[in-house]
Amino acid sequence: MIVQIARLQIDSAHLDEYKAMLKEGVETAIRVEPGVLTLYAVYEKEHPTHVTVFEVYADQAAYEAHIKSAHFLKYKTGTQSMVKSLELVRVSPIALRSKERQ
Amino acid sequence: MIVQIARLQIDSAHLDEYKAMLKEGVETAIRVEPGVLTLYAVYEKEHPTHVTVFEVYADQAAYEAHIKSAHFLKYKTGTQSMVKSLELVRVSPIALRSKERQ
Repeated sequence: MIVQIARLQIDSAHLDEYKAMLKEGVETAIRVEPGVLTLYAVYEKEHPTHVTVFEVYADQAAYEAHIKSAHFLKYKTGTQSMVKSLELVRVSPIALRSKERQ
Repeated sequence: MIVQIARLQIDSAHLDEYKAMLKEGVETAIRVEPGVLTLYAVYEKEHPTHVTVFEVYADQAAYEAHIKSAHFLKYKTGTQSMVKSLELVRVSPIALRSKERQ
């Protein structure tokens, strides 16, 4: 399993457009890619241009397939000018629990 | 729905003990509290003392019940001396999708 946290800062002038494109990308990835297990995308209430995505992939191959997929590349190229910074942080699970995963 | 990201720095001398207590707290909360929907606890591969918990509660009442629960208070008091810093960030969803939530 691959778990990653993406931390982004978005240009405030394009925030609504960015969020719409991210939402579309997330929904498509979960729907069509078997190896994309979880994508939780949120923005901070006090700093709405600060976006975090919590990402879980089945394995490294699933991650690599995801970043080459047409929908990811559409999101990536479509939002490139809106993203002021991007930090990708690889993490290891301590406990990943939700009502659906018990 | 209440969504929150907790960012913690843990004393490296007590990291294994901290992770064990956090894991127990997460598993108990998901098992016994109907309003605790998701707790994803991870640590950074490059900075293992940096812990993040992605938290989803049904509503504010569920959050308040959680932080008053016996298992949360056990975790909180038991790990107090191990936690060097804690930041709680309230966030809003852009898209929360996982294979189990479609």
